[in-house]
Amino acid sequence: MPTVKLSSLATTAPQKFGKEQTKEQFRRIQDELDDLQNLLYAEHKHSLLVVLQGMDASGKDGVIRNVFGMMNPMGVQVQPFKAPTEEQMDHDFLWRIHQHAPAKGMIQVFNRSHYEDVLVQRVHKWVDEKTIKRRFDAINDFEKLLTEHNDTHILKFYLHVSPEEQKQRLEERTQDPTKMWKYNEKDFAEAKLFKTYWKAYEDVFENCNKVPWIIVPADQNWYKEYVIAKTVRDTLKSLKMKFPKLPAPKNNEDNKS
Amino acid sequence: MPTVKLSSLATTAPQKFGKEQTKEQFRRIQDELDDLQNLLYAEHKHSLLVVLQGMDASGKDGVIRNVFGMMNPMGVQVQPFKAPTEEQMDHDFLWRIHQHAPAKGMIQVFNRSHYEDVLVQRVHKWVDEKTIKRRFDAINDFEKLLTEHNDTHILKFYLHVSPEEQKQRLEERTQDPTKMWKYNEKDFAEAKLFKTYWKAYEDVFENCNKVPWIIVPADQNWYKEYVIAKTVRDTLKSLKMKFPKLPAPKNNEDNKS
Repeated sequence: MPTVKLSSLATTAPQKFGKEQTKEQFRRIQDELDDLQNLLYAEHKHSLLVVLQGMDASGKDGVIRNVFGMMNPMGVQVQPFKAPTEEQMDHDFLWRIHQHAPAKGMIQVFNRSHYEDVLVQRVHKWVDEKTIKRRFDAINDFEKLLTEHNDTHILKFYLHVSPEEQKQRLEERTQDPTKMWKYNEKDFAEAKLFKTYWKAYEDVFENCNKVPWIIVPADQNWYKEYVIAKTVRDTLKSLKMKFPKLPAPKNNEDNKS
Repeated sequence: MPTVKLSSLATTAPQKFGKEQTKEQFRRIQDELDDLQNLLYAEHKHSLLVVLQGMDASGKDGVIRNVFGMMNPMGVQVQPFKAPTEEQMDHDFLWRIHQHAPAKGMIQVFNRSHYEDVLVQRVHKWVDEKTIKRRFDAINDFEKLLTEHNDTHILKFYLHVSPEEQKQRLEERTQDPTKMWKYNEKDFAEAKLFKTYWKAYEDVFENCNKVPWIIVPADQNWYKEYVIAKTVRDTLKSLKMKFPKLPAPKNNEDNKS
């Protein structure tokens, strides 16, 4: 019995959050984020990996644009993970993921991630249950590797959208000329599987939680983006980063001559 | 107390192996290897990772040339691991290694490997002992990932050369015009540390043995290359590989038209 039941978790903001005040707070956090990212880059010690997971139309692209789009792109990289290529299929499922692990000083955002290999592949029964269990272990080992061996701080967000809100957003894509480029016929079929997806997610939360999951109510973009920005801000602040001092003058042969 | 004591292990062939007969056998194995590699490539199911470790002048290059050089280069890749670049240093120590994990159907040879990070770095005390222990765990997890999630068979060879033979080979590099290109001043300093290296290797054999180590007496090239070729041959044979049959004719829309 999984400890998280998605059906019992809110997909909207708690009552005390008003839209306008929250948006105002979000703007202040954006400024802080810009400074913190600059400091992360300058200190060149830690790195940040942000994993964005969620159903279609849960708003992953919007988070990337509004939360990470305000930072210096020199220090932020976004990597989407779609259906694997033939070359990627010829390797273990973490091979293509590991290549995009963040370098020191960098923020790396994964738009979908290694979790697809225990979600979409499981829902469609493309792999057996034994493989899924082994992948959970491999994912835990992998996240431990990044955490312990490169000072990488991992934030895993699940964007929790209601089936009703999702349906409405998918419909919008068939009507709004600025959103039609996102239309994918298959999304409607996938949306019908939402209960199976939720079950798969609940199992992920249960089995891959050494790095904890943050479940974000995602029906309102303003609240979702505020929560993510705030979490990133708090995480970066907790690192107690400092700008490096000037290095001590070298006292070597070059200076003596 | 490590279970392997390198000082008590032979660096030369057991008495029963005559040079000429062994060489003759080696040539027969070479032919088999060529066929087996072709079958591995054709079946496109398993892969083979060969890790070559050993002191300077223990004969890693010779093994690559004589054992793997006879195979079709389309299916064999060799990757040397030297001092890490700045970009590699900005990632966990397995980042640069994982990128070169073999694809299905391929043989990948590592000339040195992830083990350098628990050998040379330890001998020179560039990292602390706590980090070394954590790296042992990470290496075990990594080898498990390749084994369980991409059907990769890993063969780890330690080329066991005596300090006397090593010294002679390093001297040769200062005299023989065809070997001078391998000369590296630092090798002589490293050779003096051989007892510390042996201790570090013994600790590796103790801690990273879920995929077992094969310790190869390496003072005689003909014996060393025979042992490695035979081990690779036996491993590939054990996979019971088969050439794929013709796929069944497709019965889809295209055929109906």
